[in-house]
Amino acid sequence: FHAAVQTGQLRKATNMVCTVSDDRGEEVTYAGTPMSTLIAEQYGIGDVISLLWFKRRLPPWAVRFIEMCIVVAADHGPCVSGAHNAIVAARAGKDVVSSLCSGLLTIGPRFGGAIDDAALNFMRGADEHIPPDEFVESMKRAGRRVEGIGHRIKSAECRDSRVELLSAYAHQRFPSTRYLEYAQQVEAYTLQKSTNLVLNIDGCIGALFADLLSGAADTLFDGAHLDEHERSQAVRSIIELGALNGLFVVARSIGLIGHVIDQRRMKQPLYRHPWDDVLYAQDDLAPT
Amino acid sequence: FHAAVQTGQLRKATNMVCTVSDDRGEEVTYAGTPMSTLIAEQYGIGDVISLLWFKRRLPPWAVRFIEMCIVVAADHGPCVSGAHNAIVAARAGKDVVSSLCSGLLTIGPRFGGAIDDAALNFMRGADEHIPPDEFVESMKRAGRRVEGIGHRIKSAECRDSRVELLSAYAHQRFPSTRYLEYAQQVEAYTLQKSTNLVLNIDGCIGALFADLLSGAADTLFDGAHLDEHERSQAVRSIIELGALNGLFVVARSIGLIGHVIDQRRMKQPLYRHPWDDVLYAQDDLAPT
Amino acid sequence: FHAAVQTGQLRKATNMVCTVSDDRGEEVTYAGTPMSTLIAEQYGIGDVISLLWFKRRLPPWAVRFIEMCIVVAADHGPCVSGAHNAIVAARAGKDVVSSLCSGLLTIGPRFGGAIDDAALNFMRGADEHIPPDEFVESMKRAGRRVEGIGHRIKSAECRDSRVELLSAYAHQRFPSTRYLEYAQQVEAYTLQKSTNLVLNIDGCIGALFADLLSGAADTLFDGAHLDEHERSQAVRSIIELGALNGLFVVARSIGLIGHVIDQRRMKQPLYRHPWDDVLYAQDDLAPT
Amino acid sequence: FHAAVQTGQLRKATNMVCTVSDDRGEEVTYAGTPMSTLIAEQYGIGDVISLLWFKRRLPPWAVRFIEMCIVVAADHGPCVSGAHNAIVAARAGKDVVSSLCSGLLTIGPRFGGAIDDAALNFMRGADEHIPPDEFVESMKRAGRRVEGIGHRIKSAECRDSRVELLSAYAHQRFPSTRYLEYAQQVEAYTLQKSTNLVLNIDGCIGALFADLLSGAADTLFDGAHLDEHERSQAVRSIIELGALNGLFVVARSIGLIGHVIDQRRMKQPLYRHPWDDVLYAQDDLAPT
Ligand SMILES: CC(C)(COP(=O)(O)OP(=O)(O)OC[C@H]1O[C@@H](n2cnc3c(N)ncnc32)[C@H](O)[C@@H]1OP(=O)(O)O)[C@@H](O)C(=O)NCCC(=O)NCCS
Ligand SMILES: CC(C)(COP(=O)(O)OP(=O)(O)OC[C@H]1O[C@@H](n2cnc3c(N)ncnc32)[C@H](O)[C@@H]1OP(=O)(O)O)[C@@H](O)C(=O)NCCC(=O)NCCS
Ligand SMILES: CC(C)(COP(=O)(O)OP(=O)(O)OC[C@H]1O[C@@H](n2cnc3c(N)ncnc32)[C@H](O)[C@@H]1OP(=O)(O)O)[C@@H](O)C(=O)NCCC(=O)NCCS
Ligand SMILES: CC(C)(COP(=O)(O)OP(=O)(O)OC[C@H]1O[C@@H](n2cnc3c(N)ncnc32)[C@H](O)[C@@H]1OP(=O)(O)O)[C@@H](O)C(=O)NCCC(=O)NCCS
Repeated sequence: FHAAVQTGQLRKATNMVCTVSDDRGEEVTYAGTPMSTLIAEQYGIGDVISLLWFKRRLPPWAVRFIEMCIVVAADHGPCVSGAHNAIVAARAGKDVVSSLCSGLLTIGPRFGGAIDDAALNFMRGADEHIPPDEFVESMKRAGRRVEGIGHRIKSAECRDSRVELLSAYAHQRFPSTRYLEYAQQVEAYTLQKSTNLVLNIDGCIGALFADLLSGAADTLFDGAHLDEHERSQAVRSIIELGALNGLFVVARSIGLIGHVIDQRRMKQPLYRHPWDDVLYAQDDLAPT
Repeated sequence: FHAAVQTGQLRKATNMVCTVSDDRGEEVTYAGTPMSTLIAEQYGIGDVISLLWFKRRLPPWAVRFIEMCIVVAADHGPCVSGAHNAIVAARAGKDVVSSLCSGLLTIGPRFGGAIDDAALNFMRGADEHIPPDEFVESMKRAGRRVEGIGHRIKSAECRDSRVELLSAYAHQRFPSTRYLEYAQQVEAYTLQKSTNLVLNIDGCIGALFADLLSGAADTLFDGAHLDEHERSQAVRSIIELGALNGLFVVARSIGLIGHVIDQRRMKQPLYRHPWDDVLYAQDDLAPT
Repeated sequence: FHAAVQTGQLRKATNMVCTVSDDRGEEVTYAGTPMSTLIAEQYGIGDVISLLWFKRRLPPWAVRFIEMCIVVAADHGPCVSGAHNAIVAARAGKDVVSSLCSGLLTIGPRFGGAIDDAALNFMRGADEHIPPDEFVESMKRAGRRVEGIGHRIKSAECRDSRVELLSAYAHQRFPSTRYLEYAQQVEAYTLQKSTNLVLNIDGCIGALFADLLSGAADTLFDGAHLDEHERSQAVRSIIELGALNGLFVVARSIGLIGHVIDQRRMKQPLYRHPWDDVLYAQDDLAPT
Repeated sequence: FHAAVQTGQLRKATNMVCTVSDDRGEEVTYAGTPMSTLIAEQYGIGDVISLLWFKRRLPPWAVRFIEMCIVVAADHGPCVSGAHNAIVAARAGKDVVSSLCSGLLTIGPRFGGAIDDAALNFMRGADEHIPPDEFVESMKRAGRRVEGIGHRIKSAECRDSRVELLSAYAHQRFPSTRYLEYAQQVEAYTLQKSTNLVLNIDGCIGALFADLLSGAADTLFDGAHLDEHERSQAVRSIIELGALNGLFVVARSIGLIGHVIDQRRMKQPLYRHPWDDVLYAQDDLAPT
């Protein structure tokens, strides 16, 4: 309480507040941990993400999973929107940062965004004990596809090995995988509809990240005594802040920069989209 | 019908469709008008915007108003988010395009975005014949401020001259100003509440742009015979596509580039925000 | 001198300096001119650009030319890098600002950048009285193409009408067109080499903008008594600050936003570059 | 040769080339390594960066060093240009990607860029056997500061622990640290000038990354038999492609996203730079 008042008072005096890091002293600290400790105690990239985004060093099982997600999402070929725009900008002779940003700015609802929605949906379904069939059918009635379900190639007979490996890791190391289990119940129902409606990699990461944040709640929210409902709310609010989206962005930055370096190395010339791939039409704005 | 089929067939064959401009021939055309015509017939910037965004050359009264909006919105000092970030990037030694984009990326709901919402709200109020008092009170009940109403300095006694001048222009030249009139009825009501709850420049531009698009409907939607409701829907959908937002963005680009050039000319050094303006706090993510 | 000292002293006290605009008073001023004056005296977009970028309202002949440049450069079809990336981002479901920036970030040396170089080169040639043949041959020896010369379709027999019209305008209204004349002498020489080595639109705008800034020197640099050499230096430094590049960027923003609105209106789906248009290769980084 | 011809022929047929990754098969491959292998063989983030940027899995000593660099560069407080602009954009209500890009676009010569130059300079000094005193004095004559040297707080008596720890790691695990040794000789000379002219963290990372790429040459350039000079050229060209810059960008993305999440969580309002921190001046563009 006192702290809150003081904080309130101090806030009046400054225009900015920051709880991420502090560079005023002799060495920078990440959420209170000084840099020399980070180096001496072998903090990895997953540890640093957990400090800078979640203010706590998460337990090793969680940190390793964060790093696995980055490995899995780092790239997906040159044809997707992000890589494509980064490549086109690099071929226009632009620097690494500009080319990267040209690509990053395509990340959103249709490209990279299924993870968040999958996580939030499966959480809602599991927390509100919605039966899997009802969960699927209500989304169908609303004209929406179930985020995290479906694959063009994979099927019940031929699983995506990444999903298998991440799930296997989580079963071994996570304290609980109840959101994954809910997702799998949803998958069991959708597989009755069609054999390619498997839990895909976005759905798997989304569900497991919700399990991760819930399983690490004692570390994340140590000041607070949260009941199950409050904990679930707290996890959801982290996802709504954009943490999963952020993870995809950091991961894919690696791939985008890889494509930019690649084009520069090969000295690829200015890209021009071929005329004959465009339908030039005339139109007015009248509603159709 | 035939055209539609053909279009459908052609679309299969190409990956892109474009109805904006065509650079395949000897000279580029904007929505069908060749460049030499643009020059010979003295098309101005407002004309070009109307061609490239709305596929039609709008009548002179509308074109001049588009240009007035750009003049009014071109800059608003160095302290607002957009100019500030452009300045900071320029002082970090970045090129014009990067600095501009760093600034543009702050334009959104809280900075630059009141025009769209003001336009859509006033349209809804006027089209659904919501009494102005009910319009204001229902937004108040929803905990929302009326976009386009309110000013820190201006008041009923001391009007914003830009609002007066734009309104005067519209009264003289627009075929109808019914959305502006609705906005003024809303203002009449809010002024009873407080003397500074005047129609502000965002609200004025928003309402008048709705009037402009409605008044130019014959030009815009010439293929279609629209009743009043359909026309209103069509206008609304143009605003929802982002046209007003786009106008603010084009306008403010001029100012942002001005700030970038200014910092470069003065050889301003790297900006560092002052430490003592930041409250460094430690925190966890627990809900409060 | 006193002013300089004062400025120096004042600078110590603030972290920011701005000579573009001022929003502290009742109404914003652009380089000292209050908004109500801008509206009342019918300032157009060209006037506002000259105020915000060059601190002075340039004479009408110059302002109209600035606007003509924006008209000419506003768009060049959907296939060039900028439009393409804006389209791809829009089809990924991104908002207007993000899509615009994804496109803008491709503007640079290979796309949109020939105007600056053309201007600086022709200025150097004319100011240093380099004979046109020597100018061309020295660039050839350096392995460089003459920026602003050459066209894929146009030729001596079939001129680009935009070049003709802009030149005609300048001959009529500019106090001097000596940089254009130099450019035309260069063209006369290159045309002996090949019939398509005409002065192109970038070269024409570049040369004429140098003429414009020189011709408006009394307005631009009114505090200073500049001899011809100093004036030329001053003009060059404005171009080096990025003003011509900025003009292209503002102009093309109009087109990019047009493409974004177009894609949104047509509800175009996520773009994926076709696999069969990509050569997938394996490689190492060894020098070749 | 045959391969080259084939490549040449194939290139004609496609508009894009990519050697980074391949998503055509059942699972994506990174530089030829399929995703399931990445997961099964526990590739970490450093491994993925080395695959996607350098086409090879670098040896463990190198991979761990890449990860240490990301840890060290992930954040540096809220006051530096990048974090500041990301914070301002987040407070303007923008999404994670837009806010991140607003911050990233400040990374360049004055912010984040000393690492590349330090690396290239120390390489040149060591490869051309320039005596350290001559190296320093020649840069002084050219009016340049030695990139990678100097610290505001640290000194010979009070070393930066990060520099010590990274150097210790490299001495233990790198096959050679000759560029670091050269940098230390430079430091020995500059320390005679002033006690704070120590090798700083940027210089240390730059020199060691040059050592890393040289030490991993057999892996990186396995197709080629390079002599020492060629190897050095090849390493330099990788740095010139932007790889070190890219590493800083990926690292700092983590911090920027941390700041964005932080501001969103605290629901910080729109930032406006304080008027009284700005010197508003009037000016013309005359040279001074
Ligand atoms: C991944 C995806 C695009 C694959 O699509 P696809 O193999 O081309 O499948 P189709 O679009 O041909 O769909 C086949 C049928 O399955 C249904 N279907 C596909 N995905 C579905 C989903 N996620 N939820 C419900 N139904 C789905 C379709 O509606 C269609 O049924 P219909 O023929 O009765 O209309 C699709 O499953 C999807 O959109 N999933 C949700 C988003 C997502 O998770 N994306 C991340 C993928 S890694
Ligand atoms: C422009 C604006 C920020 C000026 O705010 P301000 O002068 O600081 O006014 P305050 O915030 O002190 O508000 C004073 C009172 O008027 C009310 N008020 C202010 N603007 C209001 C609006 N647009 N609609 C309804 N009530 C409003 C406030 O709720 C407050 O009432 P309260 O004391 O009962 O809570 C504010 O009017 C606003 O947010 N307007 C809507 C957004 C907009 O149009 N922005 C573009 C401005 S160019
Ligand atoms: C515009 C341009 C790309 C047209 O190119 P093109 O018609 O395809 O011409 P080609 O590339 O086939 O060149 C034909 C010959 O003319 C020469 N040439 C073309 N443009 C030249 C120039 N600007 N200066 C000198 N020589 C030039 C070429 O070197 C070539 O000679 P070669 O066969 O001996 O090598 C080219 O002229 C150019 O690069 N111009 C400079 C950049 C510029 O102004 N861009 C803006 C265009 S609006
Ligand atoms: C890091 C840095 C900004 C610290 O600067 P500082 O402590 O404020 O030092 P000062 O600017 O007060 O310089 C003090 C003296 O040392 C000299 N000096 C500082 N850094 C120097 C360098 N890198 N090379 C040569 N001389 C240097 C200055 O020229 C000055 O000498 P002078 O008084 O004769 O002009 C500065 O050393 C520097 O610019 N280094 C190079 C860039 C770099 O490596 N940046 C990354 C930092 S992590």
